[in-house]
Amino acid sequence: MYVPEPIEKLIEAFMRLPGIGPKTAQRLAFFILGMDEEDVMDLAKALVRAKRDLRTCAICSNITDKEVCAICSDKNRDRSVICVVQDPRDVIAMERTREYNGLYHVLHGAISPMEGVGPEDLRIPELLKRLEKEEVQELILATNPNIEGEATAMYLSKLVKPFGLRVTRIAHGLPVGGDLEYADEVTLTKALEGRREL
Amino acid sequence: MYVPEPIEKLIEAFMRLPGIGPKTAQRLAFFILGMDEEDVMDLAKALVRAKRDLRTCAICSNITDKEVCAICSDKNRDRSVICVVQDPRDVIAMERTREYNGLYHVLHGAISPMEGVGPEDLRIPELLKRLEKEEVQELILATNPNIEGEATAMYLSKLVKPFGLRVTRIAHGLPVGGDLEYADEVTLTKALEGRREL
Repeated sequence: MYVPEPIEKLIEAFMRLPGIGPKTAQRLAFFILGMDEEDVMDLAKALVRAKRDLRTCAICSNITDKEVCAICSDKNRDRSVICVVQDPRDVIAMERTREYNGLYHVLHGAISPMEGVGPEDLRIPELLKRLEKEEVQELILATNPNIEGEATAMYLSKLVKPFGLRVTRIAHGLPVGGDLEYADEVTLTKALEGRREL
Repeated sequence: MYVPEPIEKLIEAFMRLPGIGPKTAQRLAFFILGMDEEDVMDLAKALVRAKRDLRTCAICSNITDKEVCAICSDKNRDRSVICVVQDPRDVIAMERTREYNGLYHVLHGAISPMEGVGPEDLRIPELLKRLEKEEVQELILATNPNIEGEATAMYLSKLVKPFGLRVTRIAHGLPVGGDLEYADEVTLTKALEGRREL
């Protein structure tokens, strides 16, 4: 198959991205050829900048382009609550609710013996240091509702017991707009267990 | 919603690509953060190079990184046949068959009054010049089997009549692996019309 080398290189580079197979990569590459030069340069620069300028916040380990992230340095946030999440994307998801005004702590993963990820691979020492120094009253464990996330939450809840603060776990239950008929039995059991009085 | 500016820029840049919405753009952007710096630089460089180094072949208008593309400068190709296609991607598709050994001519579009594309927007003068200069015996019209492609094929077949060469159109019919039951009536009619003796 004949393709000029610069396109082939671009197709190969696109194929390294998640969810992009040969067909999509080819479509993207040819689209790039038709784009304004300025837009292509923007994309190339954005790639380099994102990789070069971003690091993890010195306090919460969230991704930021500063020493301390915008949330940790925001004076209007409630410093007595820390929400522990697995991933920077989870912070974005939480922020989208506009309901949470506390701080975060990003673990960058969850305990997973299957994938060889132990507690020592997560940002747990940083969390403990914060609990020692800062005046935290509640720790919300918002790791994912799957085996790894639950294990991490359990592990953390035991670990922070000596600090004597309130440790909570986000609720399990039926998603809003979901259908009881199609809910799996574990979710339904959790939804029943977590029922609240109206 | 709080996202560091370099990520936001990257998400925006990704969203300009076809078939990439906000969710996919976000996923890609965060994936970039986790990639090796070298791979990210590769992608950025591939983008810039593809945009900067590629141009259209002086003969067939296919995309190439040289003055004359690899197919036009290949001495082993049959110079008596030219296959006219709409897009450089169509050349790749044709080459994948490994059945065609002639040359190509890329029109870069098809006649489409709806989108304001007329014959003057296509690489037709370049094709006529080739027919004058080169010893072409057959012109295969391989534009897409839709209204625009058919119109372009009809237009071209009339236009090249004075040259007195053989002008053919690729066959319409049922795709291999297709199902008669689900074929639309136009395709089935074309398949019947184009039937061949066994």
